[in-house]
Amino acid sequence: MTLATSHGTDLFLAELAQNLGTDVVVTDRDVVASYRHDQSRFTDSTDPVAVLMPRDTGQVSSMLALAARFGVTIVPRGAGSGLSGAANASEGSVLLSLHRMNSIVEIDAGNRTVVVQPGVITADLRAAVSKVGLHYPPDPGSVDFCSIGGNIATNAGGMCCVKYGVTGDFVLALCVVMADGQVLRTGHTTVKGVAGYDLTSLFVGSEGTLGIITEATLRLVPTPRAAHTLVASFPTLESAGRAVASIVHAGLTPSMLEILDRTTIKAVDAMTRMGLGDGVEAMLLVQSDEPDARDVLGRIEQLSTEAGASDTVISDDAAEGEMLLEARRMALPALEQLGDWLLDDVCVPRTRIVELIAFIEEVAQRHSLTIGVFGHAGDGNLHPTIIYDSNDAQSSASAVAAFNHITEKALELGGTVTGEHGIGQLKKSWLGRELGSVGVQVHHAVKEALDPAGILNPLGVLPPRDSV
Amino acid sequence: MTLATSHGTDLFLAELAQNLGTDVVVTDRDVVASYRHDQSRFTDSTDPVAVLMPRDTGQVSSMLALAARFGVTIVPRGAGSGLSGAANASEGSVLLSLHRMNSIVEIDAGNRTVVVQPGVITADLRAAVSKVGLHYPPDPGSVDFCSIGGNIATNAGGMCCVKYGVTGDFVLALCVVMADGQVLRTGHTTVKGVAGYDLTSLFVGSEGTLGIITEATLRLVPTPRAAHTLVASFPTLESAGRAVASIVHAGLTPSMLEILDRTTIKAVDAMTRMGLGDGVEAMLLVQSDEPDARDVLGRIEQLSTEAGASDTVISDDAAEGEMLLEARRMALPALEQLGDWLLDDVCVPRTRIVELIAFIEEVAQRHSLTIGVFGHAGDGNLHPTIIYDSNDAQSSASAVAAFNHITEKALELGGTVTGEHGIGQLKKSWLGRELGSVGVQVHHAVKEALDPAGILNPLGVLPPRDSV
Repeated sequence: MTLATSHGTDLFLAELAQNLGTDVVVTDRDVVASYRHDQSRFTDSTDPVAVLMPRDTGQVSSMLALAARFGVTIVPRGAGSGLSGAANASEGSVLLSLHRMNSIVEIDAGNRTVVVQPGVITADLRAAVSKVGLHYPPDPGSVDFCSIGGNIATNAGGMCCVKYGVTGDFVLALCVVMADGQVLRTGHTTVKGVAGYDLTSLFVGSEGTLGIITEATLRLVPTPRAAHTLVASFPTLESAGRAVASIVHAGLTPSMLEILDRTTIKAVDAMTRMGLGDGVEAMLLVQSDEPDARDVLGRIEQLSTEAGASDTVISDDAAEGEMLLEARRMALPALEQLGDWLLDDVCVPRTRIVELIAFIEEVAQRHSLTIGVFGHAGDGNLHPTIIYDSNDAQSSASAVAAFNHITEKALELGGTVTGEHGIGQLKKSWLGRELGSVGVQVHHAVKEALDPAGILNPLGVLPPRDSV
Repeated sequence: MTLATSHGTDLFLAELAQNLGTDVVVTDRDVVASYRHDQSRFTDSTDPVAVLMPRDTGQVSSMLALAARFGVTIVPRGAGSGLSGAANASEGSVLLSLHRMNSIVEIDAGNRTVVVQPGVITADLRAAVSKVGLHYPPDPGSVDFCSIGGNIATNAGGMCCVKYGVTGDFVLALCVVMADGQVLRTGHTTVKGVAGYDLTSLFVGSEGTLGIITEATLRLVPTPRAAHTLVASFPTLESAGRAVASIVHAGLTPSMLEILDRTTIKAVDAMTRMGLGDGVEAMLLVQSDEPDARDVLGRIEQLSTEAGASDTVISDDAAEGEMLLEARRMALPALEQLGDWLLDDVCVPRTRIVELIAFIEEVAQRHSLTIGVFGHAGDGNLHPTIIYDSNDAQSSASAVAAFNHITEKALELGGTVTGEHGIGQLKKSWLGRELGSVGVQVHHAVKEALDPAGILNPLGVLPPRDSV
């Protein structure tokens, strides 16, 4: 199929405005420019031709049916908080923002499910279900401003995953507008269901390349108990790694198991004057919301001490626990003080995190860069944060080189190039490396089956077919 | 593509025997006949032309590459314990049995993962990982004789699902031989990973129609505590239903929550003389393996009593708990004593199970049939078991009519036509009803993308494109 010329796109927008009203088609240059890209760095973007702002599934369907007819490429966008460029507008494309579709349609407490539109802010969803004693666990760092649709499209994670799993683990059913405008309903609202292919999971994490999610039914859990908190400081990175291994080996499953490296600790200390201690090379921040949380954290404290922890603090008070987690929450803001930042996201087997962090320290030295590492130790999912100067070409080049070295190392350690941020435009070539030739071919086969004209997010996710 | 003639299939088998050795190609009529069908009723089957018995992924790849060249249709099979006809041989097809590929390749205790070949018996897998303090939760009723490959291909469930989830929740990565013989690796061996489309979940539950699974990496959990057990007897079905609703509403998550209806209870009592009580119309069998299991079951006991339970028994002793579960384990064997049986599998929202069971009682009366209902109340996943006489055409027709009424009712209650047994050949038309026209089209698009020649399990899962 031939994609639309600029004239064809104008005709498309005019017909859309005529059919659905002018308020759903925005072409104001300032507004349009503000929808150009997400929060990623080192990704390409361009101003979209226009921004579509549908109010319901019917409008999204009409938009895509018409886009298919005119050959207009459509880039869907949630809240724009992504870090991989999955929502970046590409040349000649029209952006479709789901922010107006922000209703919580129904909370079914008896079946522990909620039906939501994609534009609902994740924190608002969590607040709404908590009022009826239910809990939606996924808690990406952007929880206060990201949208549930974007979370589903990228299969977002967070600190809860070590116990509760990722976004996809909570998606039971979807309403998806396909590239030709047809409306597909996937999944089931029951707890179990194996009727047909698991199309729900196929759309979760597909980053707007296979269809546009316009409604989701999510599984909820009972509100957990207030968590107990443990912070352990270590004199060496290796001792913190030994502690993580012991915790996993002992069969303990905390509800949070985070790590900060010395660069991050120093940055946090410089900003907050928390006095985290000079000799501290790594910290673990642990929570448990089990009925026997006191025992669980007691055992983790003991394992930490045996592994060489120099200091441990435990609290069973929720407010005090929040204060103890301040260092984790301040990790990115503190690193941001040091310059421009490129936030990576890799995941390795839990047993390999010390190797990865040690390698990152080496890379930082080699490139004379500051790289802070924090993240989800319990999942092996780390966020190396490379500090650089975007006005200095040499520094920018070093940042990119370090980013690539780290991503390659993650693959070498048996890991994956992204644990929770997604591929977007940032890691397409790395996805090719991870998938290999057959995997890339199968990805293209699936994409062509569901979007034969290549209308949806044309620069997202897929590495070129012949690139590996 | 043109499918093979009988002569073409002979050439295929001859070339395969020449390339891979005669021991992987079995044409003995008695052996071949024994691979004709799984354990389903009312499904079509025919003797396969031959049975292929590969020993490794390379052989499966060679077999499919050659099958693609000759246009030979291939039906993969695990242990043949399925209940929907997904492994039934179709006219002119060659059966491919994975039973020789039964190695547990690697247990990685540090990362709580295991790599298995598809032919491993699920109970053997559970026993092997338990030796290193780990647990593989999924426990389909056939756990002692089904294979993990079949479990993955059908996304099997069991009694654990109410707390731990289904088979698919434990599959991290797959090795899949595609319809053209290419070898695809999906997923990641890390806990988290969002690189590319979730092809792993697409193959889970695809019942041999999209590819042949030759290796899987599974997630494990620490060995749970010994469970405490509660059995509650109810004078009415409604009171048992109220108890289930109260348990869910109270935010309690037992590790097992099963229900037996009066027909099942009477059948079990007739066989075992357990003395389950004449006035008992429904029983709930509950376990908890939480650290506060005593409290959890105490609260569930109280909620059951408030809902109207006439009798409750609690045990914190594992062996005694096993005895208390005897009635649940004997449900199907006891119903089997009454005649031929057609075991259904539907899933409804947890809040609708009483309506479904009451409807089933009505259907049984209307058709003068005995239908026992047992299953996973905590998931809304029930197994109505229709007793009939296969030598009596009228009785058989009534059984099929009842089966269809029940399946339709499940859809009407907001449920799904299969919670854990799969579609196979048994429920293809029902799948069409559940998916609707767009869903069926998308299923065909995916099938054609991955198996363009239609070589894999050609009669499985997919309803005809124009059937809805």
